[in-house]
Amino acid sequence: MAKPKKTPRPKAETPRGFRDYFGAEVTQRAEMLAKIAGVYHRYGFDALESAAVEKVEALGKFLPDVDRPNEGVFAWQEDAESEKQGDWLALRYDLTAPLARVYAQHRNDLPTPYRRYAMGPVWRNEKPGPGRYRQFYQCDADTVGAGSVAADAEICAMLSDCLEEVGIARGDYVVRVNNRKVLNGVLEVAGLSGDDKEAERGIVLRAIDKLDRLGPDGVRALLGEGRKDDSGDFTDGAGLGDAQADVVMGFMQAKRGDGAATCARLRELVGDSAVGIEGVSELETIAELLAAGGYGPDRIEIDPSVVRGLGYYTGPVYEAELTFEIKDDKGRARNFGSVAGGGRYDDLVKRFTGQEVPATGVSIGVDRLLAALHAKGRMDTTSQGPVVVTVMDKARMADYQEMVAELRQAGIRAEVYLGNPKNFGNQLKYADKRGSPIAVIEGGEEHERGVIQIKDLILGAKMAEGATLEEWRDRPSQYEVARGDLVAKVREILELYS
Amino acid sequence: MAKPKKTPRPKAETPRGFRDYFGAEVTQRAEMLAKIAGVYHRYGFDALESAAVEKVEALGKFLPDVDRPNEGVFAWQEDAESEKQGDWLALRYDLTAPLARVYAQHRNDLPTPYRRYAMGPVWRNEKPGPGRYRQFYQCDADTVGAGSVAADAEICAMLSDCLEEVGIARGDYVVRVNNRKVLNGVLEVAGLSGDDKEAERGIVLRAIDKLDRLGPDGVRALLGEGRKDDSGDFTDGAGLGDAQADVVMGFMQAKRGDGAATCARLRELVGDSAVGIEGVSELETIAELLAAGGYGPDRIEIDPSVVRGLGYYTGPVYEAELTFEIKDDKGRARNFGSVAGGGRYDDLVKRFTGQEVPATGVSIGVDRLLAALHAKGRMDTTSQGPVVVTVMDKARMADYQEMVAELRQAGIRAEVYLGNPKNFGNQLKYADKRGSPIAVIEGGEEHERGVIQIKDLILGAKMAEGATLEEWRDRPSQYEVARGDLVAKVREILELYS
Repeated sequence: MAKPKKTPRPKAETPRGFRDYFGAEVTQRAEMLAKIAGVYHRYGFDALESAAVEKVEALGKFLPDVDRPNEGVFAWQEDAESEKQGDWLALRYDLTAPLARVYAQHRNDLPTPYRRYAMGPVWRNEKPGPGRYRQFYQCDADTVGAGSVAADAEICAMLSDCLEEVGIARGDYVVRVNNRKVLNGVLEVAGLSGDDKEAERGIVLRAIDKLDRLGPDGVRALLGEGRKDDSGDFTDGAGLGDAQADVVMGFMQAKRGDGAATCARLRELVGDSAVGIEGVSELETIAELLAAGGYGPDRIEIDPSVVRGLGYYTGPVYEAELTFEIKDDKGRARNFGSVAGGGRYDDLVKRFTGQEVPATGVSIGVDRLLAALHAKGRMDTTSQGPVVVTVMDKARMADYQEMVAELRQAGIRAEVYLGNPKNFGNQLKYADKRGSPIAVIEGGEEHERGVIQIKDLILGAKMAEGATLEEWRDRPSQYEVARGDLVAKVREILELYS
Repeated sequence: MAKPKKTPRPKAETPRGFRDYFGAEVTQRAEMLAKIAGVYHRYGFDALESAAVEKVEALGKFLPDVDRPNEGVFAWQEDAESEKQGDWLALRYDLTAPLARVYAQHRNDLPTPYRRYAMGPVWRNEKPGPGRYRQFYQCDADTVGAGSVAADAEICAMLSDCLEEVGIARGDYVVRVNNRKVLNGVLEVAGLSGDDKEAERGIVLRAIDKLDRLGPDGVRALLGEGRKDDSGDFTDGAGLGDAQADVVMGFMQAKRGDGAATCARLRELVGDSAVGIEGVSELETIAELLAAGGYGPDRIEIDPSVVRGLGYYTGPVYEAELTFEIKDDKGRARNFGSVAGGGRYDDLVKRFTGQEVPATGVSIGVDRLLAALHAKGRMDTTSQGPVVVTVMDKARMADYQEMVAELRQAGIRAEVYLGNPKNFGNQLKYADKRGSPIAVIEGGEEHERGVIQIKDLILGAKMAEGATLEEWRDRPSQYEVARGDLVAKVREILELYS
């Protein structure tokens, strides 16, 4: 038999824009997702897990009009079967497009309204950048088939509960609510309705979205002739006249002391616009429903400056912002910003069925939320390392295995050292790398006397850090106990640090 | 502006071989994964989550030697960048190949030995069939960098603990352990070693793997000239002579009453073969270590009939089988069979680094395990539907919202009806479809009197099922209580059924 040709060794590396997550990075995210799932469940939302792979045409936007429809998605063509061309498949780029497909496909079996939540990775075929990966988690909840803004109000309340459940204290966040209909009414008043004004409306929307970053003057420039940024680059403006721009600026800055006052101000701004008036009424209803549920402006507020980028929103839009400051890479204080957002979109299911189905939903950015909790020091970073049973005598592995089995059966995370036991120093180095709180040692001499040594590694680490407190200094860092007291002594030490 | 060309409506369907999972299908799997993760963690294993996407060459087997390297995997080529051809990327087909890549990439930062667990979907570009999907879950634990069979023994014990943790009772499963080295020794004795006998060895391995299905006579036929199956198709055999076949059959049937007796019998069979003797010693060590940990043959046994299909195993192999019978689709009793398996493989990391790194690990088939628990009736199937607050008066939505907020704050799963409230019958049908235990009703008349109606829907369902028991008959299915007693009464009813 001919020897197979030798292929060069592959490089061990993640593809560009992907990464690996280790240990606590994985478990902390899993715990956060479980907490959020608990809140979603309590609100009556049901879990849905669709496959990562969809047909390209089901995903929308990304139609196979070119040879390779991979604009923004990872896509490939199935093998042809006999005469039939293979389907183009793609990795989902969010959880909303699959929901629309699932609802259209299973609508006869699903309850209406259908409240569902979904969590999992999504993929974007985009240029990666610092902190910007091509696979990341989303965590969504949507209500399909409910036209009432009570559905929007419910999701805002649920979002507030989720943030508190994962450890964001009340006062450290605010959920802001606005309504696209009000904005449309304002644009109508400003003379920007009509199909021929779509480009201007787009510029206005994007300008409002930049209020945080550019301030009122910057936005005003973008509404008018345009704006030159610090680098000298010029961005074209919407070309509005002063009166028109005043209306838009007035809308953006319509926020008052409470929801009723804000709504009253918006009512002035939308004038006779039917859609605008409807939008203000919806905001009033949302505020009323939230107040009835106990969600006051300390948690959820009406804020006309929220527009949300996506074109497909048709009614209420909402966004959760963390209000505390964190230090950025250069040590400058800045607001943490948005961690979740969503709104009402009524056209997604229609693509499949022709029927308009109202829907509203939120997406929580779990990775940003985790980063926020870390920045606030709210993440438990105490060591989760295992107790390490060291191996002094390779021939007595069964004895060490027995110890570790006892510890595990008592619910204590523990392991026996499985590397080459010759060099005892390496075993302690290993325990250190694992973040182990305790090492258990039983040499031949101890074995004969029926005792074991229990080494407190946390104390050792604290001493090494130069702790000079009395409480540390007087405590022994190693104990000799009877073999039978293994579990009890280990538990006693672990409880000292819990 | 030119109107965009109208595209035909896309079909709402999952791609061939993929499916959607709803409600309890999702949450029960998540709960099972969390329980298994808990056991893995207690054994000192650390979580690892690598991306779904790998470079094709990192995945091994599937090298880009053809234009489209998609044999068995979903693969696509990245866009070219300037002069450079784009990489071929692929969805992972298991969790072991990514582990080898991760370990090779991060080995300087990882502890050695590295115990890691991983859980998540994997993808296979294969022809789908009944119950056979192109995306499914795996749930693995591996120890990399430990040559000692103590690592294999530990994983067998952990597998046993996992099965009991998720609800498989002791006695309903067995973990079987064997060693490829023993098999290699037996093949040596049978004159089947040497590079020129690779084809025969492959046939022998596959034949042994079919013992369950074909019985000893069928396997014997495959070891010899070959075998004609019921449909008349002929499978070529390994062409062994009688004496050779006797040795192999003797190996397969070497299991005795306990591990020591089985090992003694194996020692006879491997004769002077060095690798065979080493293999038997390893099995003896494994049995000894497991006994020290309290894992006797009621949970884990030495069984020479286990070979495991994959070519890459180099030492101990193990498999968990459920021993109870279930009824198949046609009502026939059959053994449930294997739900997990693994073994030692020492060559995977070498592909990247040139260095041989010993490794051993297990993969649990969570979907099969879930099916087993359902078949055994061990899955909690009580309704998790929400309490539904019905809407009698659309104008008083805020009142209903208040009720539902109270229930949720008390930790009770609840929702207000968000569909069109006009037809009250539809609201009760909705509650039925949701599996709701309770409906709350407050019409205008009740509102004036400060009371609400609480309808026990579980009792209603039981009555409808024709329950004639006294306990049901005498119990009211609807209660009128003061508005202030909402939470207390709902809780009281829910506790009746918990």
